[in-house]
Amino acid sequence: MGRHSAPLGVTSIDGELDENVLLELLDAFHGYEAALMSNDLEALDLYFAPGPSTLRGDPSALLVGHDRISAFRGLRGGVPPRTITEVHLRVVAGSSPLAVLVVSVSVPAKGGSGLQTQLWTRTADAEERAADTAGAIAAGPAWVISAAHVHGATPAVDGRVWRVAGAPLVPAAASGPLDGATVAVKDLFAVAGFAIGGGVPQYLAEAPLETVDADAVAALRRAGATVVGIAQTDEFAYSIAGRNVHSGTTPNPAVPGAIGGGSSSGPASAVALGQATIGLGTDTGGSIRVPASYQGLWGIRTTHGAVSAEGLLPLAPSFDTVGWLTRTPEMLRAAAAATLPSGAGAALDARFVVSHDLVASCAPEVQEAFDELTDELVFGLVEDVDLGDLDEVFAAFRTVQGAEAWRVHGEWITAHPGVLGPDIAERFELGSRITPDAEAAARQVLAAARDRFDEVLAGRVLLLPSASSAAPQLTASADEIATVRAATLRMTSVAGAGGFPAVSAPLLRVPAPGGTAPVGLCLVGPRGSDLALIDLATTVAAQITA
Amino acid sequence: MGRHSAPLGVTSIDGELDENVLLELLDAFHGYEAALMSNDLEALDLYFAPGPSTLRGDPSALLVGHDRISAFRGLRGGVPPRTITEVHLRVVAGSSPLAVLVVSVSVPAKGGSGLQTQLWTRTADAEERAADTAGAIAAGPAWVISAAHVHGATPAVDGRVWRVAGAPLVPAAASGPLDGATVAVKDLFAVAGFAIGGGVPQYLAEAPLETVDADAVAALRRAGATVVGIAQTDEFAYSIAGRNVHSGTTPNPAVPGAIGGGSSSGPASAVALGQATIGLGTDTGGSIRVPASYQGLWGIRTTHGAVSAEGLLPLAPSFDTVGWLTRTPEMLRAAAAATLPSGAGAALDARFVVSHDLVASCAPEVQEAFDELTDELVFGLVEDVDLGDLDEVFAAFRTVQGAEAWRVHGEWITAHPGVLGPDIAERFELGSRITPDAEAAARQVLAAARDRFDEVLAGRVLLLPSASSAAPQLTASADEIATVRAATLRMTSVAGAGGFPAVSAPLLRVPAPGGTAPVGLCLVGPRGSDLALIDLATTVAAQITA
Repeated sequence: MGRHSAPLGVTSIDGELDENVLLELLDAFHGYEAALMSNDLEALDLYFAPGPSTLRGDPSALLVGHDRISAFRGLRGGVPPRTITEVHLRVVAGSSPLAVLVVSVSVPAKGGSGLQTQLWTRTADAEERAADTAGAIAAGPAWVISAAHVHGATPAVDGRVWRVAGAPLVPAAASGPLDGATVAVKDLFAVAGFAIGGGVPQYLAEAPLETVDADAVAALRRAGATVVGIAQTDEFAYSIAGRNVHSGTTPNPAVPGAIGGGSSSGPASAVALGQATIGLGTDTGGSIRVPASYQGLWGIRTTHGAVSAEGLLPLAPSFDTVGWLTRTPEMLRAAAAATLPSGAGAALDARFVVSHDLVASCAPEVQEAFDELTDELVFGLVEDVDLGDLDEVFAAFRTVQGAEAWRVHGEWITAHPGVLGPDIAERFELGSRITPDAEAAARQVLAAARDRFDEVLAGRVLLLPSASSAAPQLTASADEIATVRAATLRMTSVAGAGGFPAVSAPLLRVPAPGGTAPVGLCLVGPRGSDLALIDLATTVAAQITA
Repeated sequence: MGRHSAPLGVTSIDGELDENVLLELLDAFHGYEAALMSNDLEALDLYFAPGPSTLRGDPSALLVGHDRISAFRGLRGGVPPRTITEVHLRVVAGSSPLAVLVVSVSVPAKGGSGLQTQLWTRTADAEERAADTAGAIAAGPAWVISAAHVHGATPAVDGRVWRVAGAPLVPAAASGPLDGATVAVKDLFAVAGFAIGGGVPQYLAEAPLETVDADAVAALRRAGATVVGIAQTDEFAYSIAGRNVHSGTTPNPAVPGAIGGGSSSGPASAVALGQATIGLGTDTGGSIRVPASYQGLWGIRTTHGAVSAEGLLPLAPSFDTVGWLTRTPEMLRAAAAATLPSGAGAALDARFVVSHDLVASCAPEVQEAFDELTDELVFGLVEDVDLGDLDEVFAAFRTVQGAEAWRVHGEWITAHPGVLGPDIAERFELGSRITPDAEAAARQVLAAARDRFDEVLAGRVLLLPSASSAAPQLTASADEIATVRAATLRMTSVAGAGGFPAVSAPLLRVPAPGGTAPVGLCLVGPRGSDLALIDLATTVAAQITA
């Protein structure tokens, strides 16, 4: 409201500006807006003040420094068409060079409204120029932005995170310890009244409406939690990247400019964004641990078979597990306690071991942060153990996973050529070519590995990073993603082969563009120790952060 | 990311500040934050610079002037608990008095993150004070905010607007003229796979899942539109306020601080917020025209019976009509054309009439704006007509509406005492007491009125304001809302009694706190003239805004 027609399109002005200087400022303001509309990256860079102090904030992140802002713009792909409807100028009294706060309202062509607050400063050489600012871009604008805060219109739901959401989508079934908790359900679980989409719109279109909640959903609802919505997943959960060709890349609020990780991508982002308190996910080869690690969340992959998979669209049943992502260890424990069969919690021998062979899969900065942290642990002797040929285990894991995934989804995929993204399609295609002999051999390797792990670990807790690196940048190529994936899966496949529970706790930080980024500390315990493992991780966290 | 521990909790600083001055600023910054957390309105008022130039923007509105900001705070009811995790200071060079832009990141206790940009200015008398700022509030803070831009964490869906939403919730059924359009469906229409909630959670909890789309939903989907979600409504659509005791008051982006109107409240807000292109609603006694008027949208109540009510939860079937809310007349026409039976469009005699008796129901500023606009109309002679005793018509409308509403919902309401909000409950209770004789007499009055209207209007188009006033403020009491409701319903009941189509076009503006607010120009045409009426309104809009 209140669109006053003031001179030169200015809605209000407070403070004095020479008319030529005002024209010069408005020229820069509108020049910047034009550069935004045409996504002229070079011009946009010039309109932002150089140096490490320049600020730009929006609902996804606060970026500090001209170059980070520039890098962000390179990834953004432009601003949707909009019209400026109000411009308020506030001259900062006595400033030298002149500084003006410009607050403007924009109306996107698609409706709604946006707001831009920009601190503009007159450049040092502007006074020496002619009032005629034609060609100002080439010479550099007469005014530049040293800080900006912007927001646009909000969509009904963020489709990168949610397939469907409600207020709530499904109420709690009873009152209990999870009263007030809200759940983002990965789109692999049955929610009564909805179909399972598995991250593939074509699959969703053909899927029947479920009539009964998946056991894991029902357990949370019985404990008092409401379902906020059904959250996105990588296609058929066969990825740890969080990049779905249909719904897009889920945001990572912990590391602006980086991927969020998957395949429990939607639940993870929903929790990180504060849109849910519990992300209900699955972890076959890292699909909870990896997004927890990338986004600084708590997460657990439960003991294989400990949580019912009834109502779950499988990927590879020999490894599929149910688990949760949360912001706090207390909420993680509450979700686990509400779901795991009561009395199932094994006690835990709180001695730690590490496998330097496993940690060697990690990026150097992750190894360094991990080593520093394990050195700090004052309780629980940290012993180095030999887990055997981990490359062989990883290869066997991949083989069995691929063969099972093809048995689950191959028929549908064959009937729907071209529906899946190229990387996921290739993964399934590899699975289709695994021979029964190769699969049987791989199963033998895994069985031997499981026995060996049980013997070597001897009831102790294996510590390792949850992922081989911090979250890769959005600019990462498919090859880079594949490399990180292989390094991470080599690490996560130990819990997969052993059927072990694994908690990811956000206790490591590594250098990243513009600051630091989280990496999870992973605690792998004996089968059945799920609750005790969460408690131990909580104790470790308290010790580390004390 | 990047939470550096800098001295005094400052993450970064650019520019020079004397240490005592810095302490003084941080004292004000943290004092303001503490006042926010305790919702100390008096302190908050002191921390914002006085005068008409002070700015405060957030995703709901940009407010200009200290007093408007103060009034907003009085309604807000506090800020959820949060922790400041980053503070960036940017000293504005050479400013006098000193000015510092403070950009801070906050993490709400419920997760997610927020961002605050504040331009702080040192007050004139701050230099004369002791460095000890104890008691600063009482004396007025040493630094005040002259402009602020803030945003908090975004919920998965805005529950004031949506019951459930998806990306999309339901895809289009075919490609057609509405390709790319997105629909917010009022929670009175059947959407296959979902129950109808009618704005009453307890009713929703007991309602069966619909198996077939309502005809009005199916028509839009067949024409290419996708369903974004099911949007909120006033309880059983029996209100024009947009204040649902369960889901809250829908936002009005066109008039910050005002109600949004109803009962098609969710669809209207969704369209105004840019979250949908078409709001599918119903209008019994104004439930499309009123929110269109309050929020500056286009809307149509169609000819009674012209659009199938199959799959619609009724309120008062003698008056219930289906219609749409849009941002543009083109989209309104497209939605209507996709739904109305082809060839049903009657031609229109583009002569205008007004009823000063009707317009007299309006607030003086609405009458004035209406008179100015009708004076401007260069085509179509505007004749004053006598529609008879409009109080009698309104009373009869209310009687029949109340009796029918009770027949539809009385049994359920009786079985669920205490579920409805007090104003809606009272309305139904009045309906329960209408005798068959009183209803029969009212129907006779309405039949006579319909004949009289047909005769007096003689195929011409009646012009009137869509509502008796601009959107009432959020602070309006139940009594004030009731008064506005009666004045508006007296006007809207003409179309109700006549079964006439009525288009609301956002062509009037009236003074409102802090600027102006929209009011709709309503065009009431002969039965069956729906499409021609939209076309005529479009022509009028082009003439008015030219």
